[in-house]
Amino acid sequence: MSGKAMPTGTHYGEYLQLDKLLSAQVPRSGMNQEPAHDEMLFIVIHQAYELWFKLILHELGSVQKLFGTTSLDERRMGFIVSRLERVTEIQRVLVDQLNILETMTPLDFLDFRDYLVPASGFQSIQFRLIEAALGLRQEDRTAYGQHAYRTRLNDDERTTLEKSEESPSLVELVEGWLERIPFLNFGDYNFWKEYLAGVNTMLADDAEIIRNNEMLTADEKRDQLAQLADTKEGFRILLDEEAHNELRKQGERRLSHRAMSAALFIDLYRDYPALQLPHKLLGLLVDIDELFTAWRQRHAIMVHRMIGRKIGTGGSSGHQYLKSAADKHRVFSDLFDLPTYLIPRSSLPKLPPSVESRLGFAYEAERETDR
Amino acid sequence: MSGKAMPTGTHYGEYLQLDKLLSAQVPRSGMNQEPAHDEMLFIVIHQAYELWFKLILHELGSVQKLFGTTSLDERRMGFIVSRLERVTEIQRVLVDQLNILETMTPLDFLDFRDYLVPASGFQSIQFRLIEAALGLRQEDRTAYGQHAYRTRLNDDERTTLEKSEESPSLVELVEGWLERIPFLNFGDYNFWKEYLAGVNTMLADDAEIIRNNEMLTADEKRDQLAQLADTKEGFRILLDEEAHNELRKQGERRLSHRAMSAALFIDLYRDYPALQLPHKLLGLLVDIDELFTAWRQRHAIMVHRMIGRKIGTGGSSGHQYLKSAADKHRVFSDLFDLPTYLIPRSSLPKLPPSVESRLGFAYEAERETDR
Amino acid sequence: MSGKAMPTGTHYGEYLQLDKLLSAQVPRSGMNQEPAHDEMLFIVIHQAYELWFKLILHELGSVQKLFGTTSLDERRMGFIVSRLERVTEIQRVLVDQLNILETMTPLDFLDFRDYLVPASGFQSIQFRLIEAALGLRQEDRTAYGQHAYRTRLNDDERTTLEKSEESPSLVELVEGWLERIPFLNFGDYNFWKEYLAGVNTMLADDAEIIRNNEMLTADEKRDQLAQLADTKEGFRILLDEEAHNELRKQGERRLSHRAMSAALFIDLYRDYPALQLPHKLLGLLVDIDELFTAWRQRHAIMVHRMIGRKIGTGGSSGHQYLKSAADKHRVFSDLFDLPTYLIPRSSLPKLPPSVESRLGFAYEAERETDR
Amino acid sequence: MSGKAMPTGTHYGEYLQLDKLLSAQVPRSGMNQEPAHDEMLFIVIHQAYELWFKLILHELGSVQKLFGTTSLDERRMGFIVSRLERVTEIQRVLVDQLNILETMTPLDFLDFRDYLVPASGFQSIQFRLIEAALGLRQEDRTAYGQHAYRTRLNDDERTTLEKSEESPSLVELVEGWLERIPFLNFGDYNFWKEYLAGVNTMLADDAEIIRNNEMLTADEKRDQLAQLADTKEGFRILLDEEAHNELRKQGERRLSHRAMSAALFIDLYRDYPALQLPHKLLGLLVDIDELFTAWRQRHAIMVHRMIGRKIGTGGSSGHQYLKSAADKHRVFSDLFDLPTYLIPRSSLPKLPPSVESRLGFAYEAERETDR
Repeated sequence: MSGKAMPTGTHYGEYLQLDKLLSAQVPRSGMNQEPAHDEMLFIVIHQAYELWFKLILHELGSVQKLFGTTSLDERRMGFIVSRLERVTEIQRVLVDQLNILETMTPLDFLDFRDYLVPASGFQSIQFRLIEAALGLRQEDRTAYGQHAYRTRLNDDERTTLEKSEESPSLVELVEGWLERIPFLNFGDYNFWKEYLAGVNTMLADDAEIIRNNEMLTADEKRDQLAQLADTKEGFRILLDEEAHNELRKQGERRLSHRAMSAALFIDLYRDYPALQLPHKLLGLLVDIDELFTAWRQRHAIMVHRMIGRKIGTGGSSGHQYLKSAADKHRVFSDLFDLPTYLIPRSSLPKLPPSVESRLGFAYEAERETDR
Repeated sequence: MSGKAMPTGTHYGEYLQLDKLLSAQVPRSGMNQEPAHDEMLFIVIHQAYELWFKLILHELGSVQKLFGTTSLDERRMGFIVSRLERVTEIQRVLVDQLNILETMTPLDFLDFRDYLVPASGFQSIQFRLIEAALGLRQEDRTAYGQHAYRTRLNDDERTTLEKSEESPSLVELVEGWLERIPFLNFGDYNFWKEYLAGVNTMLADDAEIIRNNEMLTADEKRDQLAQLADTKEGFRILLDEEAHNELRKQGERRLSHRAMSAALFIDLYRDYPALQLPHKLLGLLVDIDELFTAWRQRHAIMVHRMIGRKIGTGGSSGHQYLKSAADKHRVFSDLFDLPTYLIPRSSLPKLPPSVESRLGFAYEAERETDR
Repeated sequence: MSGKAMPTGTHYGEYLQLDKLLSAQVPRSGMNQEPAHDEMLFIVIHQAYELWFKLILHELGSVQKLFGTTSLDERRMGFIVSRLERVTEIQRVLVDQLNILETMTPLDFLDFRDYLVPASGFQSIQFRLIEAALGLRQEDRTAYGQHAYRTRLNDDERTTLEKSEESPSLVELVEGWLERIPFLNFGDYNFWKEYLAGVNTMLADDAEIIRNNEMLTADEKRDQLAQLADTKEGFRILLDEEAHNELRKQGERRLSHRAMSAALFIDLYRDYPALQLPHKLLGLLVDIDELFTAWRQRHAIMVHRMIGRKIGTGGSSGHQYLKSAADKHRVFSDLFDLPTYLIPRSSLPKLPPSVESRLGFAYEAERETDR
Repeated sequence: MSGKAMPTGTHYGEYLQLDKLLSAQVPRSGMNQEPAHDEMLFIVIHQAYELWFKLILHELGSVQKLFGTTSLDERRMGFIVSRLERVTEIQRVLVDQLNILETMTPLDFLDFRDYLVPASGFQSIQFRLIEAALGLRQEDRTAYGQHAYRTRLNDDERTTLEKSEESPSLVELVEGWLERIPFLNFGDYNFWKEYLAGVNTMLADDAEIIRNNEMLTADEKRDQLAQLADTKEGFRILLDEEAHNELRKQGERRLSHRAMSAALFIDLYRDYPALQLPHKLLGLLVDIDELFTAWRQRHAIMVHRMIGRKIGTGGSSGHQYLKSAADKHRVFSDLFDLPTYLIPRSSLPKLPPSVESRLGFAYEAERETDR
């Protein structure tokens, strides 16, 4: 192995520390009697969740580190994207695992539920750390979540979590990276000006479609034109940095105006080579939000099918909490809303050649120079 | 073929009428120019949806027929269950198909979106018929749904739908079947009386758990005991036919008191042979609701990622409509809430032998008589 | 909690022993340098597999115990079926998890692969125990598997595995249960005699279909009639206990003739209430085989995409081993082949009323007596 | 709509031609009697397959066209990749759909199976066209497939298929594109020379690992060293164009030596921006093969569970055919085998700066020039 210090004779069981791993399943219901059969399922599935949480934290941590370097070259971007893709694949398995838990019936759960009180998924410090790494702040949490935050964690856990919340989260790092993207103003090229012209064309078209739509009644037309006026107002705010900042102050937007502009530029011109990975990245961030939302929704339904509207072992009405967190605990909702502002290719301003060539590969640019 | 009139020489393509099937994809964007590439995807996926809707209607129709017969023997119950299982498998594919649609980007969609106006999924008469077959009534629909109902269908479609709404829906047929289930009162056995005793034991236990929970603050204990009092009130209403009927009048319950009781009995004593299929059936009805909910939610997200908060081609804010329908268009929510009223096996009253033996198989009962 | 000894204040992290669980990930590549990023994924996924293996063993063990009791009542059958269903859901997640592993690229794997030598999945004693619990015997294993069996396990593991192989496996317990099923001969009713008549009708029909098929050439007809003769021979062997035992001696059949008959009876008359769960059970046993086959196939492909035709860390050509095990390590192939012997309902002999009523529920039999 | 000729009032049902689509389900078993309930499922699922086949052909056709242009710029590569990704998503649904078909029991199938003779999936001309578009040649088909090819299609279909086989298939177009990739020789840089050095380092390391492995017996070491010698021979052939051409003649390789080299280069240096999409593309081609393999395998199992070892309606032993096609009908197996030749990053020769910069983006190259 040419100099590498190689541990000889790795054994599968030792490598995976199976003695520790497989001795960590101790049903509470078995302390004074025959254990409830299904408690083993309950323990194993939660342990599997925690293993995957550890891996998600490993991936998010490395992505944060890669974003943190001042000059982010494009090979690193490849790693960022593939590690976030891995996170989404893990999330899909988190959702799939619920199929296993759903083979437990409510009566089987009630056989050992009392022994768990007040343990609760709220106490998963790793899941909190994941939320914090993505960028969920205390004030973004549902009321119940904030309360549990203060009371359900022990001191060590609270310290770890606070420390994590202080270091730059993924949403902040992404914002910084978006703000540094160089193409929005280039020579005489001004992205906003060009885009505004495209928007106006599109809105005029939309109004005409509504007016000509023979299947709509006069009332419906009026309603839809009113909606269109709202859309127009939405575009105005998007374009107006001050109005945007007002929304941020009210908590309705999170990303800076500059970062939003760059994200929009990427989405509109995503087919250019240099924007393909950035575009993929933005999509993955929304996917991560979606998949946690889907997991919370499925989880909420599962809890409901298990205990109905009863209180959970942690003292919360689990179903309601999970349902509201599913809606509220998104981090990248600005990116989720971005398609609102896309305009059709037919209204989309063409990029000037100077920008266009910079968005291609070096070997292509060279080829063109050669001609 | 011993007398069967056998068509000789069936050809695959003729059997499937592929000439009709495969000539039915005509992109609108291609009428005056090169068609937008992705419109083919858009057409094919909606046609695939409609094919599956036809099959769902075929299965639901046969289940309605099987339920409609006065004496429902247990072999028929086997067919009912397996056909509803098929419906859930189809629904899973309806959800999976969205993965294909999500390979279309917003810009690709905008290339042909204007040509679709005002066609819209609202106009799928088959999907309306599915909702009606399950038991969704006009008054249960979201405001938008009710409006579209009146204006977006043509006369023939409206007639078909009204006719379908008049014939007994699945929820009504299930209610009738539940009301006919014979085991709730049997000799001196009175299910409600026994159950009430079990409930009281359980609630006393729950209160004690909360009081002894050292990890809760005094405030939290007070909150949770208040929640428990609500739970108690819920049980009182469940047991009180008049209170239950009051809730029905307000639209918060749909099934009759008698039907709810039978459903609860089935869920509590589901392990007995004669209750296993009925229990499976109740679970499938909730699954069907869940899966349409999941489909609407995923659909809503997909629409949002495609057009953001813009208005849909049918003139609705598609995302909002689908999201609200996802919550509101459940039909079997009484069954979904049923686990609220389950009590642990340790508090569950044992059935008297006279009931117990009747819930077994004939060959077993005989064996016992033989002893 | 009325007398139950209740541990107060269960904490989530303690309950799940997260300190042990989450400290068991130690990358080898990190011993002398920066660890390879993806080794964490490699460790976590294998640990997740081992957790699920533990649960599968828990479920299979309880099913073996339930089968082991002399009188197997029908409520226990319900538990057996639902626990085997759980096993299949776990297996589905085992397959899904490969999606996560596939986010690792070959180059990323090569970064730490050398450190693993010669650890290998072959050394998973739990997976061997699962195979043994199902009924895989040493002589059924592929040559490579037999070899590894002797050399790759340590003494303790070998002893555990041998002990497990000595106790009755699932396939043996199922065989015993099938042999005890009472309906095959009942008064004058003789299942085999009736079935034989049905088979003969069906085969005569099939021959006629082939002869009348205008789209087949004379040669094709001859081929297909020859195949039909083979089919006929297959039925003859099925019906002839001696011929069947000859096949068993050659290792081509595993179940006894009596057990095969019972399984066939169940599949043919599966719609009767008393046969619905037994039929479900037989289907699940085949599912379990299928899902491990699917897992081995996907796993084989994954290994190939990672290392191509190179040797694996355990010294085997992993892809080839997994591929051959996928085909060879089935346990319930007799049940998998059973559909060969099904005959259409139109040729299926009706059961006499005495058998029919015994296959129904007690309360129905009673109802009929009342009339 | 500013001059676009806009069809006003598109109606959902007309747009999708639902009258044609939904009148194309005519069960054969219903011609003289009550139709078999499950034949509707059988028809609908095959029609859904055919709809998706049409879309796959649409996507493959457009990809063939995009590859066919002499200068393939990188924006087109983005379309190629996203359309092939769509194909894989469709394939996943093709597999998922089998879950629906599996809700049909063998007895339910036998109720109408005789009516289908000799229609068979073999007669799906669209599926043949897909295989041909990918690059499956007549001589690659299994013996049965070749036979059916001649006899089971009608004249029109055979002509269409022959025409399709004459135009350049995807595998040929990919080969041409790979051969045009410019980076393998650049100034003094010679990829093969550098790679050979890396291979030799790696093989020496591997031999040392085997020799030092304390857990292997002397016999095992000898075996593994022999395997390693085979590996070495494999590399020799890869590097030797003549030996490679010999393998091609024998049908064991399909791609030219030049194309294989380029594919290997892409996989080894995949992290460079200009190679990310090409690498993704190669992965997708293997995915497409895999997913059809998985579909055939699942399909084979489903057929077996339906009819066991009986002959299929088309006169073939469906299970055996599908199983052998699953292995034999791969088109991109050269790419599937490619990981055999990957070497670890630690042995991988670094690219010279002149090549490295050309594989980056234009704006980065510029930035560097500016310094």
